[in-house]
Amino acid sequence: MAKWGESLNRLANQLSRLPGIGPKTAQRLAFFLVAQEQAKVDALVKAIVEAKEKMRYCSTCFHLSENDPCEICADERRDRSILCVVSDPRDILAMEKAREYKGLYHVLHGAIIPSEGIGPDRLKIKELISRLDEGEISEVILATNPNLEGETTAMYLARLIKPMQVKVTRIAHGLPVGGDLEYADEITLMRSLEGRREV
Amino acid sequence: MAKWGESLNRLANQLSRLPGIGPKTAQRLAFFLVAQEQAKVDALVKAIVEAKEKMRYCSTCFHLSENDPCEICADERRDRSILCVVSDPRDILAMEKAREYKGLYHVLHGAIIPSEGIGPDRLKIKELISRLDEGEISEVILATNPNLEGETTAMYLARLIKPMQVKVTRIAHGLPVGGDLEYADEITLMRSLEGRREV
Repeated sequence: MAKWGESLNRLANQLSRLPGIGPKTAQRLAFFLVAQEQAKVDALVKAIVEAKEKMRYCSTCFHLSENDPCEICADERRDRSILCVVSDPRDILAMEKAREYKGLYHVLHGAIIPSEGIGPDRLKIKELISRLDEGEISEVILATNPNLEGETTAMYLARLIKPMQVKVTRIAHGLPVGGDLEYADEITLMRSLEGRREV
Repeated sequence: MAKWGESLNRLANQLSRLPGIGPKTAQRLAFFLVAQEQAKVDALVKAIVEAKEKMRYCSTCFHLSENDPCEICADERRDRSILCVVSDPRDILAMEKAREYKGLYHVLHGAIIPSEGIGPDRLKIKELISRLDEGEISEVILATNPNLEGETTAMYLARLIKPMQVKVTRIAHGLPVGGDLEYADEITLMRSLEGRREV
């Protein structure tokens, strides 16, 4: 490996730590980057540095944004009585694309996975309960992923929230089971919102 | 899209320009990077900047290396009478892994693709001929890819080099070791039959 230069080796190593990038792809990307014009490499580096610098978590809903509160939390036109709970900031993008939902969000940053020792305390659940305690929210839509972890998390949250006199709904199983919310198409997402039922 | 921050958007855009990275993967990577610890992002950025800064092309064989001449060209133990011609620096890594070849290399940086207007003048062919003119090389192995472009390039080079009284060989075509005859395509099977040897 020394034959192709330590710095290129290090770059491939770094790239292979990204999700979905195996060692072969990492090597391919490393060679590609090194062969690129300096200006293009500079643009990529600048984009990484700036995004990391500017993007932060909204202290209310824990979505990623350049502002705190985020654009959604700050938007006066959104319905403040309804809260959609998702696992990941990317799920908000998918929901927003569907253009069906006009309430607020809460990002858990993960799901309960007992087999990996990820319990409720590792998620933004305490913060969710605090928001509900304020009394403005009348419905919580559980939009965790339609897989085992997402269902577990939804069930856990339903049991926790129901005693608070808040309506709890789960997005409908129009979503392919075992799938990933992020990859759902707009129509499927719209249908699953329309078909939500109280749990 | 504005909802998830301009800087994150720009990062996803930049990432989607990398080979094999579609818009969805780019988005996923952008979110991943922004959610990473600062130290890990810094390490990636440093690796990109350093690799781009340190890696250069060997002025003899056009391989990527931190040194010029590259480690292979500078290695006194390599056989200087034999030259392996490849399309891409990564092909050298593949060859070196095989630990079979002990000669030198020459990287063309591409292949002849008439349909895309990529002619011989866009490749490091003039430089290859100059090396052969020095008279030290007695055999050229054409190790361009076993596809249409690679074959076209190999044929072009063979016609060009043969009059120079240099032995020209082409790497063998056949079934990949560990592969399955059932899944081999017709052309590969035909070639592996043509190239059969007595055992």
